[in-house]
Amino acid sequence: MKFELQQVDSASKARAGKITTDHGEILTPIFMPVGTAGTVKGVHISELSDPIKAQIILGNTYHLYLRPGLETLEKAGGLHKFNGWNGPILTDSGGYQVYSLASTGRKIQEEGVKFKSHIDGSLHFFTPESVMDIQRTIGADIIMAFDECTPYPCEYGYAKRSMEMTHRWLDRCITRLNETEPKYGYQQTLFPIVQGSVYKDLRKISAEYIASKGAFGNAIGGLSVGEPAEDMYEMADEVTDILPKDKPRYLMGVGTPANILEGIALGIDMFDCVMPTRNARNGMIFTTQGIINIKNEKWKNDFSLIDPMFADELHGQYSRAYLRHLIRCDELLGAMVASVFNLRFYLWLVKEAREHILQGDFATWKNGAINQFMHRL
Amino acid sequence: MKFELQQVDSASKARAGKITTDHGEILTPIFMPVGTAGTVKGVHISELSDPIKAQIILGNTYHLYLRPGLETLEKAGGLHKFNGWNGPILTDSGGYQVYSLASTGRKIQEEGVKFKSHIDGSLHFFTPESVMDIQRTIGADIIMAFDECTPYPCEYGYAKRSMEMTHRWLDRCITRLNETEPKYGYQQTLFPIVQGSVYKDLRKISAEYIASKGAFGNAIGGLSVGEPAEDMYEMADEVTDILPKDKPRYLMGVGTPANILEGIALGIDMFDCVMPTRNARNGMIFTTQGIINIKNEKWKNDFSLIDPMFADELHGQYSRAYLRHLIRCDELLGAMVASVFNLRFYLWLVKEAREHILQGDFATWKNGAINQFMHRL
Ligand SMILES: [Zn+2]
Ligand SMILES: [Zn+2]
Repeated sequence: MKFELQQVDSASKARAGKITTDHGEILTPIFMPVGTAGTVKGVHISELSDPIKAQIILGNTYHLYLRPGLETLEKAGGLHKFNGWNGPILTDSGGYQVYSLASTGRKIQEEGVKFKSHIDGSLHFFTPESVMDIQRTIGADIIMAFDECTPYPCEYGYAKRSMEMTHRWLDRCITRLNETEPKYGYQQTLFPIVQGSVYKDLRKISAEYIASKGAFGNAIGGLSVGEPAEDMYEMADEVTDILPKDKPRYLMGVGTPANILEGIALGIDMFDCVMPTRNARNGMIFTTQGIINIKNEKWKNDFSLIDPMFADELHGQYSRAYLRHLIRCDELLGAMVASVFNLRFYLWLVKEAREHILQGDFATWKNGAINQFMHRL
Repeated sequence: MKFELQQVDSASKARAGKITTDHGEILTPIFMPVGTAGTVKGVHISELSDPIKAQIILGNTYHLYLRPGLETLEKAGGLHKFNGWNGPILTDSGGYQVYSLASTGRKIQEEGVKFKSHIDGSLHFFTPESVMDIQRTIGADIIMAFDECTPYPCEYGYAKRSMEMTHRWLDRCITRLNETEPKYGYQQTLFPIVQGSVYKDLRKISAEYIASKGAFGNAIGGLSVGEPAEDMYEMADEVTDILPKDKPRYLMGVGTPANILEGIALGIDMFDCVMPTRNARNGMIFTTQGIINIKNEKWKNDFSLIDPMFADELHGQYSRAYLRHLIRCDELLGAMVASVFNLRFYLWLVKEAREHILQGDFATWKNGAINQFMHRL
């Protein structure tokens, strides 16, 4: 894997770059659609390439481990073969889901985390080592370190102890990956995760520790968990000052169009979030003209295109009135159309940001863009 | 509208024909996907043309009347403009839904039917006249007469009185259509409906009455409501002996691949059913090799194509194991993929039947085909 830093903005910390993986290139800054269980909800695999133009997607280790399970993934030859997505895949470490979904009876210890499946209540145990093995078997191009994602709010003492354990776990992850081989013949690279809740001194300690590992790329976790946006930006700002400039930086679980543009301004290169697909299903549509709550009466007889910027054979002809009808009736097609529109917008947004970084006017463009794209139509 | 009878099978009553509408041609026998609320569940409008190759779709008057409602449909310029499907559309009369869905407090009288919306409990009144007006406003190419669809079982006395009322309602439908103009500049044609439950003498009376109206096409209703398949075939057989040969015949709400092939053998030209889409969502997949219950353990590590007969850019690469995973996880993509496969199979099935009618070996082909396509893999 390779990262080429192509341009740094003069008026912000925004960067344009190119990641090269064995499954293709990723132009940064990039947004990564979330394919929880090996499928981005409501979206055909081929739609991810066109019209969405995704360059990398996420898989959730926790979900994939439970279903379809490692036996099937291994027999398939990895997730790429299983679902037909041929671009790069990043898998999270399962930590976040273990803490949030499988809350009943989960127990975090130095050795690892015991948890119950949210599907059938069965008992499982994740360790830094097992989670590396699982991600190897899933076939991730980018493997996330096993960490504890602290909730918000989080007491200082807990945040500090948790961060220190996350660091010890990171060392175990690195050791395990060094002892094992890529599973399917292509490179599988680790991203360590900076933790430290909303405490600047902890974030600094964590970022320095993570940076010292010399990983190919680095991630910032434990944000976008309920804290004010200002705290998130402050932490990201602190951390990106420390993380190496020649490595891609991934802000996990972020966010709104505004969060993403601010994150880019702070030197973040990679983002993921369920917002475009989850909100799509609830009728919140992100467009190049602003945000539409498609359930509103005002769209009832609006037969104009959902987003006039976007037309393609499969989704081009749908009107706002028709999408409103579909979402109100809870029709599958509503979720399908809205998901494609939102993801396409997110990918378009980061591409726009990239172009403005390359042409040198990102910082000035950003503020107008946030106003425009966060504006409620 | 025009119907050309192209071929009649020598060993059965099967026919091949061509219906010409202002929205294009329909080669019969044909299966019509059900687009309840102006969308075939889980399917993009453009997927209906390709890869499904639908030639006509259904809309449900009851659902469309409630949502999006007549105001929106009229302002859109009719359902074709609203949802973007440019082929012919047939709408049912709403009767079936009024009896089955809106059961609370519905009241059937000579004048019409009072019912409560299943969505918000609001009161509505359908008459033969209002239902003709509604279907004109929806913009159906083929308008179904307002009838009472009797349940199964149904006492002889009730079935007879209901049939007679359906006949009187038919006269009111015809009168109303004669008094009104097509709404959007293209022809809108009425199909009357034969009733009479499972009583041969009633079916005969009804078929003769319906035939005497000289409508462009005729339908058989009140079947596939729980009666044994043999009763359905017997009634269809009786009725197709009476209905004019030079008019298309539509057997409403039918059915399994076997039901459709037997129906074709009895001289039916048009079919509709929610089975391919509803069963898709539950994981029952109709393939050219037989029926798959995709939830079964046996498909867990079967990475072969869902149906090797069918490959296209959007759905071609999905395996049985992957579809099983999607359906088990209740993922939207599972419903999407399964729906396209099932509908494509249904359209392929009637096209195959048509080809065998045209080449003169339908009757012999049919029995083997039923064994093959109803076989559980
Ligand atoms: Zn621009
Ligand atoms: Zn054949």
